Amino acid sequence: MNHLRQRLTEGMLFTDQYQLTMGQLYFRMGLHEIKAQFDHFFRRYPDYGSHQAGYCVNAGLEWLVDWMQDAHFTDEDLALMRTLTDNHGNRLLHDDYLDWLRTHGTFDGLTLRAVPEGRVVHAHAPLSIVEGPLILAQLLETSLLNHLNYQTLIATKAARMVEAGRGRPVLEFGLRRAQEKGGNAGGRAALIGGAAFSSNAGISYHMGLPPKGTHAHSMVQLFMALGEGELGAFRAYADVYPDDCLLLVDTIDTLHSGIPNAITVFEELKRKGHEPVGVRLDSGDLAYLSIQVARMLNDAGFPDTSIVLSGDLDELVIWQIITQISQEAPRYGLDADHLIGRLVYGVGTRLITSWGEPALGGVYKLVAVQQEDQWKSAIKLSDSPAKMPNPGQKRLYRLYDRRGKATADLLSLEDERVHMNETLLLRHPTMHSKMRALRPDEVSAIEELLVDIVVAGKVVYDFPSLETIRQARQADIERLDPGIQRLVNPHIYHVSLTPRLWELKQQVIQAALAE
Amino acid sequence: MNHLRQRLTEGMLFTDQYQLTMGQLYFRMGLHEIKAQFDHFFRRYPDYGSHQAGYCVNAGLEWLVDWMQDAHFTDEDLALMRTLTDNHGNRLLHDDYLDWLRTHGTFDGLTLRAVPEGRVVHAHAPLSIVEGPLILAQLLETSLLNHLNYQTLIATKAARMVEAGRGRPVLEFGLRRAQEKGGNAGGRAALIGGAAFSSNAGISYHMGLPPKGTHAHSMVQLFMALGEGELGAFRAYADVYPDDCLLLVDTIDTLHSGIPNAITVFEELKRKGHEPVGVRLDSGDLAYLSIQVARMLNDAGFPDTSIVLSGDLDELVIWQIITQISQEAPRYGLDADHLIGRLVYGVGTRLITSWGEPALGGVYKLVAVQQEDQWKSAIKLSDSPAKMPNPGQKRLYRLYDRRGKATADLLSLEDERVHMNETLLLRHPTMHSKMRALRPDEVSAIEELLVDIVVAGKVVYDFPSLETIRQARQADIERLDPGIQRLVNPHIYHVSLTPRLWELKQQVIQAALAE
Repeated sequence: MNHLRQRLTEGMLFTDQYQLTMGQLYFRMGLHEIKAQFDHFFRRYPDYGSHQAGYCVNAGLEWLVDWMQDAHFTDEDLALMRTLTDNHGNRLLHDDYLDWLRTHGTFDGLTLRAVPEGRVVHAHAPLSIVEGPLILAQLLETSLLNHLNYQTLIATKAARMVEAGRGRPVLEFGLRRAQEKGGNAGGRAALIGGAAFSSNAGISYHMGLPPKGTHAHSMVQLFMALGEGELGAFRAYADVYPDDCLLLVDTIDTLHSGIPNAITVFEELKRKGHEPVGVRLDSGDLAYLSIQVARMLNDAGFPDTSIVLSGDLDELVIWQIITQISQEAPRYGLDADHLIGRLVYGVGTRLITSWGEPALGGVYKLVAVQQEDQWKSAIKLSDSPAKMPNPGQKRLYRLYDRRGKATADLLSLEDERVHMNETLLLRHPTMHSKMRALRPDEVSAIEELLVDIVVAGKVVYDFPSLETIRQARQADIERLDPGIQRLVNPHIYHVSLTPRLWELKQQVIQAALAE
Repeated sequence: MNHLRQRLTEGMLFTDQYQLTMGQLYFRMGLHEIKAQFDHFFRRYPDYGSHQAGYCVNAGLEWLVDWMQDAHFTDEDLALMRTLTDNHGNRLLHDDYLDWLRTHGTFDGLTLRAVPEGRVVHAHAPLSIVEGPLILAQLLETSLLNHLNYQTLIATKAARMVEAGRGRPVLEFGLRRAQEKGGNAGGRAALIGGAAFSSNAGISYHMGLPPKGTHAHSMVQLFMALGEGELGAFRAYADVYPDDCLLLVDTIDTLHSGIPNAITVFEELKRKGHEPVGVRLDSGDLAYLSIQVARMLNDAGFPDTSIVLSGDLDELVIWQIITQISQEAPRYGLDADHLIGRLVYGVGTRLITSWGEPALGGVYKLVAVQQEDQWKSAIKLSDSPAKMPNPGQKRLYRLYDRRGKATADLLSLEDERVHMNETLLLRHPTMHSKMRALRPDEVSAIEELLVDIVVAGKVVYDFPSLETIRQARQADIERLDPGIQRLVNPHIYHVSLTPRLWELKQQVIQAALAE
C-alpha cells in the first residue's frame, strides 16, 4: 500500500495539475520543444515576526537532482491521466500528448545551473536556472520549488540558531513536528545549516553522522510506576550507558529531585572510572535553571558536564538565555562564559517548521524563450516593481570588498563578463535613481556563483560531502557584514544589476506595458 | 539513490535515536516485553495569532497504520546501528539487542485504538491509545506523532477555510511550499478537512479525485514574448480546453487587460456553443477586484462564471473578502450573495503550512504499565497542572445536549461505563472546584469515540473512503456549538473526567510528589 502510494505520489505526478494542462497546450501548439529559461529565486528573506533574516543558506539541490533523475511517467500515471474529463465529459488529456509524455517526459533534456548548497544566497538573485524544452522546464517547476524552498528555509533557520548559540552545538530534534516525511529533508537541511547532529536516526545515517539522543520522560515515568523512582531510572541508564550518561532531569522537579538524583548517579559513575556526560532540562525557566543546575553540578565536582537545553527554543530564546546568563551568573559566583560554553541546544518544532515564517516564497519565473534561434526575454508585470523578475539569461557575481566581506551580488547579462580592473556600476533592481560605483581598489575579489549541475540531462557536478557544504556555509557567513548577519532588523544586502541588464529590463517592461 | 535513501530514512529508522537507546535499556533490564499504554493527545488548539481554533479535525490514521505494517529493521539498518560507539569508543548498541530487534522489532504486537479520521477532536482527550510490549509501544512514538500531528493540523486548517468561505469550494494549491514529500500528507489532510480538490496530481489520484488546475503566468508570459500577447495566450487556451476555460487574468493588468481579453475569448467560445468556466485573480485587492470583475463579466453577459481567488489566502483573509463584498457590492449594483456564491478559493502556503501555528503540539505519554498482571498508572509531573497527562487506561465519551450539540467529552476509567440514565458528574481535569452535573434529561446521546484499529498487530478496522470521512467531519462540525466553531476567540470545549478518574489522577500525583 505504502509502496504503491509512493510510486504514484512521489514520482512525476508530484506536481501541480496546471503543469500538465499547460503541457498539453504547448504540445498542441507545437511549442513544447522550443527552448525556455526559468529562474528560481526568492523575493523576501524570512521574517519571523520579532526577528528577520538578512541572508539565506542555500540547500536542497542534491535531492532535487535525485528526484529529476528518477522521474518519469509510469503506465499507471498515464492510465490515471487518461481518466480525466472536461466539463463536457470529454477526455481532458489526449493520447497523442500522453504518448509523447511516455516517451519524452523525463528531464533528460534539461540544463540546470545553480548556486551550490551551503552557500549564502540573497533575495532577487537566482538560486537556480533551468534551461531546456519548454514543456519539461515548465513541468519541473513544482518539484523544484518544493525541494529547494523548504531546505533553504530550514538551513537558514539552523544557521541563525547556531549564530545565536555562539557556535555551541545545536541538535535537531524536530521529526515528530514535521510535515510527515518532509522531516527528513528538514533534518538534512538543518545539518547543512549548522546543526551539529540530529535525533532523526535515518537521516543521520544517510548524512554520515551518528544520530543523537538519550532518553525521554517516559523512561523515568516507567521506573516511577514500577516503584523504583527517578533514581532507579537514572541508575539503570548509567548501568547501560556508563560512558554516555546524559540524564533528563525534569520529570519530577529539576532542582529538588532531578539534579540531586543525577549527582548521586554521577558520583557512582565517577567512582567506577566513568565520566558523566551531562543533564538535559526540558521545561521551566531555562536561563534561571541553567545557573542553578551549574552551581549544583560545580559544587558536586562536575564543572564540565554538559547542560542540554530543550523545549520550544529558537534563535531569539537562545539569545535571551545567553543574555540572562551573562547578566545573572556572576551574582551566583559563576563564570558566565564557562557556563555558556557548556550549554547544548536541542531544537525541535521551531527549527523543523521555521517557526514564524514556515515557508520560503521562492518562485520560478519564465525569463527567456527562444524563437528562430533568437532568445527573447520574458517578464511578468506587477503593480509592485519588486515583484517583476529580472528578464533574460543572466550571470550572478558576488563582489567582495577590501575587508574580504561580501558587499553585493551583481546580476549581468549572460554574455557580459564582470572584471576587477574596471569601475563597476551597480544599479538598484527597481529604483532608477539608486546606483553605486565600485572602483577596482574597492573590490578584493569577484566570484561567479552559479555552477553547472546538469547539462542536457547529464549530471556534471560532483555533489560535495556534508562537511564540504558546511565549510562553504561557514566561510560565507564569516564574509557577511555584521549588519547583514544580525538576528534582528538586519541591513538589506545589495543585489544589483549591471547597466546593460538594467536597460534590458526597462525595454522589456516598456514593451509589455505597450501591449 | 532516491530509492536507497527512502528505504533507510522512511522505514523503521524514521524515528528519534532515544527510542532506540531506551529500547536497549529496557531490553537489558528485562523490561522490554512488559505491557505499557501510551496516550496520544494535544494540549492546546492551534493559535494562529489573530485567530484561534476551538476544535481540531482528526486525520492521519490510515497512513500511520500503513507505515506500521511495513516498518521493520532491515539488515542495512542494523549494520548502521552496529557502527555507533559511545564516548569511550565501545559499541553503543549490542548484538543481542540488535538480534532481538531483527526478529521482534515490528509492530505486530501492538493494539491501537483511535478516534476515526474526520471526527472533531479536542485538547486533552486521547486521539489514539497504543498498548503492547513496552519497547515497541515506545518505538512507535516518533512516527505516530509525525503522522498524526501534521495531518490533524492541516485538516483543521482546511475546515476553518471552508467555514470562512461559507461552503464555497476551497482548492488546495500548496505543494510547492510544503516540507518536501510532506506536501502529499498535507494534500490528503486538506481534502479530509474539506478542501474540494487539490492541484497536487499524485495525491488527488491517490484519493480518487481529479486534480485541478489550469495555467500559470508563465503561459501568458510565453505568448507575450512570442509576440502574441495575452489575448493570444487566452485564445490558445480556449482552443485546447473549450469546455474548461478558466483564465488567469493578472499577468499584465487585471481590469485593463486580463478581463477585457478574457471576455473577448469567452464571447468567441459562446458563439461556438461552449460555456466559459471563469477567471482567476492572483494578486491585488481581491475584494475590490472581485466586485469590478463581476461587474465586467455581468455586463458582458457572463453572470455565472466562477471567480477563483488565490494569493496568500487564509481563513481570516477569506472572511475579510466576504465581509467587504457584502458591504461594497450593493453600492455597485451587485447582489453580494450572488457574487459570494460564484467565488472559489485557491489556497496554498497558508493551508499547507498551517500559517500562524505550523505544528500541532501532540504528545505521546506513558499512562500505564503492567507489573505482575496489575496495571499501574504512570504520570509526568509539571509545574503547570494542565501539562500533567490523565493517567491510566481510559475510555472517551462524547455527550450531546438536547439540541443535539456536543456539550462535553468525558474521560472515564477503562472499566467504567457512562450511561444516559444517571446524572453525570463532569470534573474539570485540573481545577478541583470546577465541576458540572448533567441530568439524564439534559443529554440526548452518548457516544464512545475510540474504536479498535489494530488489535495485537492485526488491522481490524475498515478504513473508510474519503467521502465517508468528509461526511463524518461535516456532521461533527454541524454538532458543534457556534461558540466553539467561530474563527476568533472560540469558547473552550469541555473535556472532563469522571469522578473515579479524577480520584485516580489525584492519587497518582500525590504518590509521585511523595517521592
